[in-house]
Amino acid sequence: MKCRFCENTAEIVLRRHKIALCKKCYPSFFEKQVTYAIEKKKMFSKDDRICVAISGGKDSMSLLHVLKKLGFNVFAIHIDLGIDGYSDRCKEVVENYCHSNDIPLVLYDLKENKGKSIPELAKKKRRPTCSVCGTVKRQITNKLARENNCDVLATGHNLDDELVFVFSNLLNADVHMLARQKPVLDSRGLMVKKVKPLYRVMDAEVKYYADIEEIPYYAGKCPFARDAATTIYKKWWNELEEKRPGIKANFYFGFLRKIQPILESRIKQDESGLRACKLCGEPTNREICSVCMLFLE
Amino acid sequence: MKCRFCENTAEIVLRRHKIALCKKCYPSFFEKQVTYAIEKKKMFSKDDRICVAISGGKDSMSLLHVLKKLGFNVFAIHIDLGIDGYSDRCKEVVENYCHSNDIPLVLYDLKENKGKSIPELAKKKRRPTCSVCGTVKRQITNKLARENNCDVLATGHNLDDELVFVFSNLLNADVHMLARQKPVLDSRGLMVKKVKPLYRVMDAEVKYYADIEEIPYYAGKCPFARDAATTIYKKWWNELEEKRPGIKANFYFGFLRKIQPILESRIKQDESGLRACKLCGEPTNREICSVCMLFLE
Repeated sequence: MKCRFCENTAEIVLRRHKIALCKKCYPSFFEKQVTYAIEKKKMFSKDDRICVAISGGKDSMSLLHVLKKLGFNVFAIHIDLGIDGYSDRCKEVVENYCHSNDIPLVLYDLKENKGKSIPELAKKKRRPTCSVCGTVKRQITNKLARENNCDVLATGHNLDDELVFVFSNLLNADVHMLARQKPVLDSRGLMVKKVKPLYRVMDAEVKYYADIEEIPYYAGKCPFARDAATTIYKKWWNELEEKRPGIKANFYFGFLRKIQPILESRIKQDESGLRACKLCGEPTNREICSVCMLFLE
Repeated sequence: MKCRFCENTAEIVLRRHKIALCKKCYPSFFEKQVTYAIEKKKMFSKDDRICVAISGGKDSMSLLHVLKKLGFNVFAIHIDLGIDGYSDRCKEVVENYCHSNDIPLVLYDLKENKGKSIPELAKKKRRPTCSVCGTVKRQITNKLARENNCDVLATGHNLDDELVFVFSNLLNADVHMLARQKPVLDSRGLMVKKVKPLYRVMDAEVKYYADIEEIPYYAGKCPFARDAATTIYKKWWNELEEKRPGIKANFYFGFLRKIQPILESRIKQDESGLRACKLCGEPTNREICSVCMLFLE
């Protein structure tokens, strides 16, 4: 099979797009998808200062790479979560890449700053590690982004991540979470604007891009892994995609276009409820934010 | 393992309810589920005259059986669709059962009344058979129910049917269909009240009931079968249910409780648009109803 755009032999088949591409043409196809997402959703422009939250994994590293390549004004933030045999490797990837590519990097060491690593915190509080980690990362990325004067915070969530998030929240009929489930969340108060420029590309498509562009990333899994449910749902959707190419994008984009706006208009975002945490000053709905609650003795 | 309710050995394991039952106790458990559905959704009472649409398959035959057994005032309607090697067998089951159980039966022969069977109609119009059949059955069951002075029309849709219907419409982001997706639709104009008393029981649970109660039904498939998508989705959900018992009910009931009402309140049912078809007098949104359009030369 020939590449859609040149005379080379196609090596990458994108069944949902009904096209096949060679390795030389694939990156610009991928970059066009990302550019389309950024423009369609008015995420940011060349004048904006963009903070990219990077974990060291393939999605966030690819995001940083593609935004830099497209000429955006980026800097990176990375949180050292203190997870043995994992965090060190992630940090190494992140530091090397940013250094070689001349990208400013803000490093944040959780244990140094807050006294406890994620595993220590989860153990002490007897709460699921992924849930504790999510709560902490959400607040600290927002704080780092804001304190470093960015216009917008970009994260590496791809189509599969977003799809499974929507699906899980449909399973729980969590209307509030579904109402907030979109690739752009405008800033409000101390919360910076958040965007997901990879929301239109699938997991496998990001992997092709990272491999062809030779983007370094840490491919190991966090030892605490994802919760079983997310893994089951991803596998399950992949089986369906195999049988009906395009079904994942159809479902997720259909949700975004027609269902999310109805739910959002119904669920009034309780903006007035957002205030500064009494202890740390970060935005919260309560008197003391959930991160301070975690770190309190 | 012992039966939850007696000393017998349990033969039926209902993982989503975390119980196991013997064959003697299962029917009353099933009947309680149906009674709960009828009462919770105010479907009908002992004073109502209930029309049950029966195809001859396990779901509608079980519905007729359970309603009669629970002491409701029922009569049955059956449409002979004229499908070779299928309709005759269905009609035989239906006639025998109603005769033996002293249930009034209204038979409607499509070819006799409208001049064409479903296969003839689909072929002539070059439209998918299942779609033509659905359009015709929807109108004729409503007409027969109304003309036989019922208070409510009951159909045998079970939890799996409803779940897959919701899921398909989510995949297509069909907000109008999702807004109408509930186990009770009130009457409006010439449209009778429609209810689905089996909406809380799963496909396999109806099958157990039909087998234990020795309800006769035609187990063969319609030769035109269901469309491939529905079959794939049902299989796919069953695999997930296998791994996470209760997920189907959780998803469907969560949708009914929290999401459907929001969509329904947003999509105003265009009642004023409902009028009598110029040719047959049945309710429609257009000048000539979709069934008359099918039968027009």
